[in-house]
Amino acid sequence: MTLETVSTSKAHGGTLGVYAHASTATGTGMTFSVFLPPQAQAGAGAKLPVLIYLSGLTCTHANVTDKGEYRKACAERGIVFVAPDTSPRGEGVADDPAGAYDFGLGAGFYVNATKAPFAPHYRMWDYVAEELPALLAANFPVDLDRMGVTGHSMGGHGALTLGLTYPDKFKSLSAFAPIVAPGQVPWGHKALSGYLGEDRAAWRAHDATALVEDGRRPAGDILVDQGGADQFLAEQLRPELFEAACKAADVALTLRMQPGYDHSYNFISTFMEDHVRWHAERL
Amino acid sequence: MTLETVSTSKAHGGTLGVYAHASTATGTGMTFSVFLPPQAQAGAGAKLPVLIYLSGLTCTHANVTDKGEYRKACAERGIVFVAPDTSPRGEGVADDPAGAYDFGLGAGFYVNATKAPFAPHYRMWDYVAEELPALLAANFPVDLDRMGVTGHSMGGHGALTLGLTYPDKFKSLSAFAPIVAPGQVPWGHKALSGYLGEDRAAWRAHDATALVEDGRRPAGDILVDQGGADQFLAEQLRPELFEAACKAADVALTLRMQPGYDHSYNFISTFMEDHVRWHAERL
Repeated sequence: MTLETVSTSKAHGGTLGVYAHASTATGTGMTFSVFLPPQAQAGAGAKLPVLIYLSGLTCTHANVTDKGEYRKACAERGIVFVAPDTSPRGEGVADDPAGAYDFGLGAGFYVNATKAPFAPHYRMWDYVAEELPALLAANFPVDLDRMGVTGHSMGGHGALTLGLTYPDKFKSLSAFAPIVAPGQVPWGHKALSGYLGEDRAAWRAHDATALVEDGRRPAGDILVDQGGADQFLAEQLRPELFEAACKAADVALTLRMQPGYDHSYNFISTFMEDHVRWHAERL
Repeated sequence: MTLETVSTSKAHGGTLGVYAHASTATGTGMTFSVFLPPQAQAGAGAKLPVLIYLSGLTCTHANVTDKGEYRKACAERGIVFVAPDTSPRGEGVADDPAGAYDFGLGAGFYVNATKAPFAPHYRMWDYVAEELPALLAANFPVDLDRMGVTGHSMGGHGALTLGLTYPDKFKSLSAFAPIVAPGQVPWGHKALSGYLGEDRAAWRAHDATALVEDGRRPAGDILVDQGGADQFLAEQLRPELFEAACKAADVALTLRMQPGYDHSYNFISTFMEDHVRWHAERL
């Protein structure tokens, strides 16, 4: 669990670092960023709450790291912000046979793949749920008893499924324009069948709407922001499916439709401060 | 002066747009971004103050547009934020013979080149001082009587030289880690000799420190932020040269050394809100 420091840079009174390591979960190198707020400076001694942000299709750790506008809000509230990559990468890592953007590299969908040729390396579920928190605790002043998770699109799917499955690990939960029902939309069909095979029962463990229907409950309430002008809203995201499941199961969901916003970081960065505050109030 | 809309996206309650046009100044296509705050929405009727941000070496309009963290501050204060490119580009545009990052494409240095083969297209001085403001006034609800300029590194050089030369156009002035004395540093020697030739008298019109020494005065006071851990501080930036010239000429300069900050957008985004506020208070 040795970390290599790729870069560090002062930002908003804290430190933005990029780190690389050999992952036991994926069997590849992995890279992630950590923003340590001013409250985490050496000698302070305090262990701080940590928010893990899971990115969407095509992203690496870098997209939200550069464009997310989370640092001022995290600095004000003493939140450590962590952004992992979206898939294993490197020699020997299988990709979409056609090189499509929505499967394979940059599109790990936060599952442990069981199907060849993806099973050996595509283990993003274990990476985010197990290895990354342990790495953070060993190398940074974070309090794993105060860990939250959020994410965008495919990463919103990851956040919701991880938060619903491990409410003991992830004490606060939110998402930006998440894929809430992968079993019912094209992106999800392709990913879940490609990584897990055709047994739809196995898909339900990686479908937030199905998890709620099957009795899973988050640690607390859930915040979801969704742009009203999102080009993927009707076909891929379908937040109304998750809303109905939460309503039927009495899960507290705040679903905010944001008129005019699209699927980009212009949307995410606008509402990031609200999400940081949401997590800070619960951690 | 027809603008082509490349993209628009809602952000922080306003609209982030990217626009392309055929430039009469450079004789090439040019691209820039405009953030219109909520106060500029159609039908509001008000003409708003505008802040032009000039980017540094290697940048296009996109770097600050995505990473600058200016939008919330501009939305709160009703400021239009405009980010042009750093050089002409396209077929027939000369580049550094060795393809270096600090001259030619991405490195126009905000001058009108007089030397072959750069003279035909490298006319960023006229582009920023004349053509861009006229384009903005014709296409957006901006008040050119309330226009400010800022920039980073090479763009800080552009902001200072334009602000000192045209105090009637640029009513407020600031810079992030600017090249303040190009006549005395390697980046500046290469650029000014390459674009303007070896006549050092011509260089003084594009050297902020020399302009102050030669009697030019800004419209008001000047704000400069400089990272203390900036890797270019001692060799290329040398803010103490500008500070001494301003002191001798009784020009009001607030030079803030920011300990630990480097030359990156981590530095810029940290202090962007302060600069937006600085301009808003003066426009």
